Amino acid sequence: MSYIFSNILGTFIIDNNLKIIDRVVYQHASDEKRLLLKHGAVKPDNDALKSILGVFKDRAYSEKFHSINLELTKAGIRDSVTDEFLVIEAVHAIDDITKVSNTLMKRFRGWYALQNPEYEHSETDNEILLGNVLKANTVKKEKISMGAHFSKEDIEPVMELGEKIRVLYRLRSSQEKYLDGVMGRLCPNVSEVAGALIGARLLVHARSLRRLAMMPASTIQLLGAEQALFRHMRTGARAPRHGLIVAHPLLVSAPQKMHGKIARGLADKIAIAAKVDYFRGKFIGNKLREELEKKFAA
Amino acid sequence: MSYIFSNILGTFIIDNNLKIIDRVVYQHASDEKRLLLKHGAVKPDNDALKSILGVFKDRAYSEKFHSINLELTKAGIRDSVTDEFLVIEAVHAIDDITKVSNTLMKRFRGWYALQNPEYEHSETDNEILLGNVLKANTVKKEKISMGAHFSKEDIEPVMELGEKIRVLYRLRSSQEKYLDGVMGRLCPNVSEVAGALIGARLLVHARSLRRLAMMPASTIQLLGAEQALFRHMRTGARAPRHGLIVAHPLLVSAPQKMHGKIARGLADKIAIAAKVDYFRGKFIGNKLREELEKKFAA
Repeated sequence: MSYIFSNILGTFIIDNNLKIIDRVVYQHASDEKRLLLKHGAVKPDNDALKSILGVFKDRAYSEKFHSINLELTKAGIRDSVTDEFLVIEAVHAIDDITKVSNTLMKRFRGWYALQNPEYEHSETDNEILLGNVLKANTVKKEKISMGAHFSKEDIEPVMELGEKIRVLYRLRSSQEKYLDGVMGRLCPNVSEVAGALIGARLLVHARSLRRLAMMPASTIQLLGAEQALFRHMRTGARAPRHGLIVAHPLLVSAPQKMHGKIARGLADKIAIAAKVDYFRGKFIGNKLREELEKKFAA
Repeated sequence: MSYIFSNILGTFIIDNNLKIIDRVVYQHASDEKRLLLKHGAVKPDNDALKSILGVFKDRAYSEKFHSINLELTKAGIRDSVTDEFLVIEAVHAIDDITKVSNTLMKRFRGWYALQNPEYEHSETDNEILLGNVLKANTVKKEKISMGAHFSKEDIEPVMELGEKIRVLYRLRSSQEKYLDGVMGRLCPNVSEVAGALIGARLLVHARSLRRLAMMPASTIQLLGAEQALFRHMRTGARAPRHGLIVAHPLLVSAPQKMHGKIARGLADKIAIAAKVDYFRGKFIGNKLREELEKKFAA
């Protein structure tokens, strides 16, 4: 009697005396060649298995076990990187860039204000301020200004800082464009209904598309408002009406008293969209969005 | 008898009946024309002053008082901006840029590691990692890598983020160069002995060159180590040996047990340098530095 035995190294035919009499050694961990059963071998039972495993204690095998196992593990890790990882990285990158450009912008404002405090104070929008200052490329100020007069070489570093902040603003919008693309690939319906950035934040918060698809609408409605929700449950404070979806255009433009209703409707549609995306259904995002807009748009 | 009376509006000759009979009205707040004393007027005494002040209650004057006062205040604020302000802004900008590029670099590492975890892990120096990745402009990885295979369009945003981080690194060095210049102008001796960046940090911490010049060497030695100093005084923990100057090349390269001695010597020389700078003395920075190096350089 001979036995047929497979492991990650290959497939082996082993005779009664525990000698390997034929083998197919896999070239790569993913090989799945089948040994022709020319020996009429049978699969070993439990007792035979124990003695056969002894054969593989041989050093030549154990080293191979190690290296092929490593290879398989690496492949496992490699294949676990999905589009969801890209969404997570892109969202975090966008958040970081926003935070970072705000930090530098605060510095820019303080520095520029030494020269032209009147304009710095009057323009609250960062990007407009920056654009105008860089366009003028010099410090134009009121006739009688509180701003100090700086030499050209003292103005230069301020302008340079401003230039670089503008580079970061541009980086942010190109990363948002990229996120749009990945979200369109990964979950076109959620992306259409919630918008790419909010959709991505929901995804990151839910930790995967699968988990998002399994969530009831009421959970999606409050994703990101956990603190407020628990405060409500603990102290009876007002219940939150929305979490991450608060930044959605429909909610931003709506009067406060409509927020609860719209948030509920929006979360409903997102929940549907997530399920369709997860199960690779057709694109119905535009229909969902239109229904929402018909119902709630001012 | 007539009186001569000056205020910020100009100089006025006023007769016995409290009528203005001659005047020099200043064009700008900083004008300081002198009225020829053709009237042989005298300066008013206290009693006369009271009645003369009544003349200026006239509305025409009070409005002018307001506007010229404002102009003077603005000029005061304007003139209070000294090179010290520029040093403060530049130091803060450098610190912000450092913090900010570290934040983005962490993000870059995480994102890049999805594709090439082996190299990301093996290279701990941020700038070298970034340089090599951008030079290759693609993801070169080991044959059997744990990194996922990304399409070109998924690699692009990572590379773009890297590019912008490099822009920030460059911004940092150009801001440091600028700080060098301002420090050389404002306090060449401190800058030579302590180095521009450490000198600037000392200046920012002391709040002005004047205050730094007034500080004893022992205070300068511990500037920036206040927390450790107070902990020492409160709990008897070990006394700190240095504050901001810890980053000085002499200290960085020295063995731990020499730190106290070197810090004391360095602070001594910085204290001298600050005094020379504040009182606009000659440049002796190189001499001070050589003395230090002769004594302590390894």
